[in-house]
Amino acid sequence: MADNNNADETGAAGDESKQSLDLESKMKIKLNKDNFNEWYPDVIELANLSDKRYPVKGMNVWTPYGWKLMLNIDTAIRHELDSTGHGEVCFPLLIPKTEFAKEAEHIKGFDDQVYWVTRSGATELDIPLLLRPTSETAMYPIFALWIRSHSDLPLKTYQIVNTFRYETKQTRSFIRIREIHFFEAHTCHSDFEDAEAQIQEDLEIMRNLGKKLCLPYLATRRPDWDKFAGAFYTIGIDCVMPNGRVLQLASIHQYKENFSSAYGIEFEDADGSKKYVHQTTYGMSERLVGAVVGVHGDNQGLKQPPEIAPIQIVIVPILTKTARTEVLDKCNEVLKSLQEHGYSVHLDLRDIRPGNKYYDWELKGVPLRIELGPRDLKNQSIVLVRRDTGGKETLAWNDLLDGVDKTLKSVAESLYTGAQQLMDKFIKRFDDLQEAASWTGIIHAGWCGDQDCGLEMEEYLDRNILGVPIDSKDFSGSCLQCGKPTNLEIYIAKTY
Amino acid sequence: MADNNNADETGAAGDESKQSLDLESKMKIKLNKDNFNEWYPDVIELANLSDKRYPVKGMNVWTPYGWKLMLNIDTAIRHELDSTGHGEVCFPLLIPKTEFAKEAEHIKGFDDQVYWVTRSGATELDIPLLLRPTSETAMYPIFALWIRSHSDLPLKTYQIVNTFRYETKQTRSFIRIREIHFFEAHTCHSDFEDAEAQIQEDLEIMRNLGKKLCLPYLATRRPDWDKFAGAFYTIGIDCVMPNGRVLQLASIHQYKENFSSAYGIEFEDADGSKKYVHQTTYGMSERLVGAVVGVHGDNQGLKQPPEIAPIQIVIVPILTKTARTEVLDKCNEVLKSLQEHGYSVHLDLRDIRPGNKYYDWELKGVPLRIELGPRDLKNQSIVLVRRDTGGKETLAWNDLLDGVDKTLKSVAESLYTGAQQLMDKFIKRFDDLQEAASWTGIIHAGWCGDQDCGLEMEEYLDRNILGVPIDSKDFSGSCLQCGKPTNLEIYIAKTY
Repeated sequence: MADNNNADETGAAGDESKQSLDLESKMKIKLNKDNFNEWYPDVIELANLSDKRYPVKGMNVWTPYGWKLMLNIDTAIRHELDSTGHGEVCFPLLIPKTEFAKEAEHIKGFDDQVYWVTRSGATELDIPLLLRPTSETAMYPIFALWIRSHSDLPLKTYQIVNTFRYETKQTRSFIRIREIHFFEAHTCHSDFEDAEAQIQEDLEIMRNLGKKLCLPYLATRRPDWDKFAGAFYTIGIDCVMPNGRVLQLASIHQYKENFSSAYGIEFEDADGSKKYVHQTTYGMSERLVGAVVGVHGDNQGLKQPPEIAPIQIVIVPILTKTARTEVLDKCNEVLKSLQEHGYSVHLDLRDIRPGNKYYDWELKGVPLRIELGPRDLKNQSIVLVRRDTGGKETLAWNDLLDGVDKTLKSVAESLYTGAQQLMDKFIKRFDDLQEAASWTGIIHAGWCGDQDCGLEMEEYLDRNILGVPIDSKDFSGSCLQCGKPTNLEIYIAKTY
Repeated sequence: MADNNNADETGAAGDESKQSLDLESKMKIKLNKDNFNEWYPDVIELANLSDKRYPVKGMNVWTPYGWKLMLNIDTAIRHELDSTGHGEVCFPLLIPKTEFAKEAEHIKGFDDQVYWVTRSGATELDIPLLLRPTSETAMYPIFALWIRSHSDLPLKTYQIVNTFRYETKQTRSFIRIREIHFFEAHTCHSDFEDAEAQIQEDLEIMRNLGKKLCLPYLATRRPDWDKFAGAFYTIGIDCVMPNGRVLQLASIHQYKENFSSAYGIEFEDADGSKKYVHQTTYGMSERLVGAVVGVHGDNQGLKQPPEIAPIQIVIVPILTKTARTEVLDKCNEVLKSLQEHGYSVHLDLRDIRPGNKYYDWELKGVPLRIELGPRDLKNQSIVLVRRDTGGKETLAWNDLLDGVDKTLKSVAESLYTGAQQLMDKFIKRFDDLQEAASWTGIIHAGWCGDQDCGLEMEEYLDRNILGVPIDSKDFSGSCLQCGKPTNLEIYIAKTY
């Protein structure tokens, strides 16, 4: 399906999506996560997270349910960035070719991936404009105007915007697409050490987000040949998907003065001297949604992490002719009480069987379900069912808030633990290159540090070196390629 | 400054902005709202709401302060739309030419305003893609897949996205720009009446937003020659700026089956028959920010409406050497208490004189200022200063929350009243065309309803007919052009 022109990419929208099925037809489909590459697009369609029938390949439609999940993740990101003194900005999408060309490595890295606007109305533009693949070249000419003296530093900004990359590989919802919902923080500092401190702050923010998304990850310093175009070094944040492939969730870059010298971002230091600022960036994208889908889900559907779930609790009334009003009244009371305590709750009043509703909400990954019928009225209780384990519990009305709070926390913990186990299962230490080649997960090995050895290893294994763990210590082994003794450990994996 | 190519529009960013001045230099500039056309860009630069030095004309940078105001307005819009059962979606930016061309009137209306992507990397695209000027042609092929039967209706969606229009007229921050922060609701209904009911709901939403933004407005049905490209009819929502020009804040469109028949959006009705849906849209943009700036501000700077102000209350400590710690402790206590009650508060700890801080926050339009010094400690009170009137009040600590709440409400009321007076001042009834021509504000007159008369009137007056007020009743007069007696009243004005 790789392609270099868009002849097969535009046209009338098709309709073979499982999205269009009614609930009864969906219920006949068996999801099978052991076949992850089929399971992943299927669960997205069945849970209605994204619609890929838009008539341009790799540009998908965010449905209300999927977009709510993305917005909740955005809110979590904003919370972290705002509380660490970053200001949210929004820069233009279109970048003049002249600005884009200023940093040589950067343009080399992106040149074959950018979309070009060459015409407005019937007029050819003298200077073509490109759709940002990332915003360094949009922001930095302006940063040069905003920064005058050391008192303007650090400058800490971020934005959440759409970016564009003309991917020629097979596209995949949330993972490899052409219009990307993108987060990017850009900071300027008076010296290298202050920029390094920013990177430590970014890693702390990542830890907080990893907890909220119930996603453990590996943080590694990428080998030089795989760093961001224009960066001094790059830290990659990767999680592992159930097929053993690794998905990059975020990247943090130390730019030093590489961009500031190209864009003239200077400041006057306390001693009156002019200096270029040191810069960092931190990028994340809708891949966070892809990871949440891929890592947590199962054969019943999605499992949403409680802190970012579009709906945290669904209430399903069990109605009988005689107790209809009483049950609905109590359901509404429970709904209101939970909403007042800040939970995102939905009362499902559809005229279909409770069992079908259970199926639907399990597919959508709602962390908790409350069942409430005539028997519960009598016992002054509700039944609480958790999505992750299917475990049921009867709660007295008086214990509702405590029980819901405790169970949501427990769901989050169990999702995190499950994801950690998945990752641990896929990481294996190897000292022999041939043995390593047969492993489907993440290869943990030694490396002498020589670039040739690294590249040969990558080629032989048909995998990428993720890099050296940033918290590496006390490793001792030998280079997987040349056998030399080394203290340098690396992870190697197939990547998305 | 009109232009049809971008030779003069791209290049290195300049630095003549008042934004770059330090506070002391800013304090020497006298704002003069009587000269509105200079005041408007000046106050935006001085308050640092937006930076227009980006090297593509008409594409501005949202600064943290301006973007926070925009996001607060987005939040107010989301609140209204979510609580009326709209689902938030996000459709791709790029639209294939083939889809864009399906509705004939629509493409005619936008053809000379769209930006075209013709190349990705080094590859010419077979089918050019355009940057959405609005999203009908992106959404409706997908709506045709989402809607099957009457039970899928009404479909109520909205999105908040960037849109693009190649404006050839002079650009102006928030008002006439080329990348627009845009809100668009799109709904589908089973029949005309249900679509009409939607339009009533949109008008109710507009009333709620008008209150929050302290903006009264005129709602008129646009004349046929000025309706949205492809619409059956258009309602325009306009406010008046202090120079007598009218700014369109929002528009609401009844499409009937114009688009659904072109895009095949059909449903099976209860009786088994196939029908096209009836559609409406509701659009707003960052012009809401432009209106807030233009309508409310004065010679001291902006006046932010309390409900959407990025900072609602600023605390300025009055520090002396002896009482420094005690004053700061109390300021922090007040800060925390107000934050806990949901207010957006900032404690200004800059090492500059209180008077300079006052100037700065007045420029930025923060509705309330709290001054707290040694004397206030002794009296267990604070001084509360409102931005709108400059009025000062001393509040006992015990009355802090009540006093702040009451005063913010009073500020909102007085902003609304002031805006209403501004509008009333500019609306004047005329029966004579020549007399009307000398009026700088909104002309209120009769119209026979004939298109020729309308167009002649527009040409003679060099103004636009806004339309017939949607709540018109009991008007009696004569056509301003031909003199025929009529019950049709209209507003006529110079528009942005």
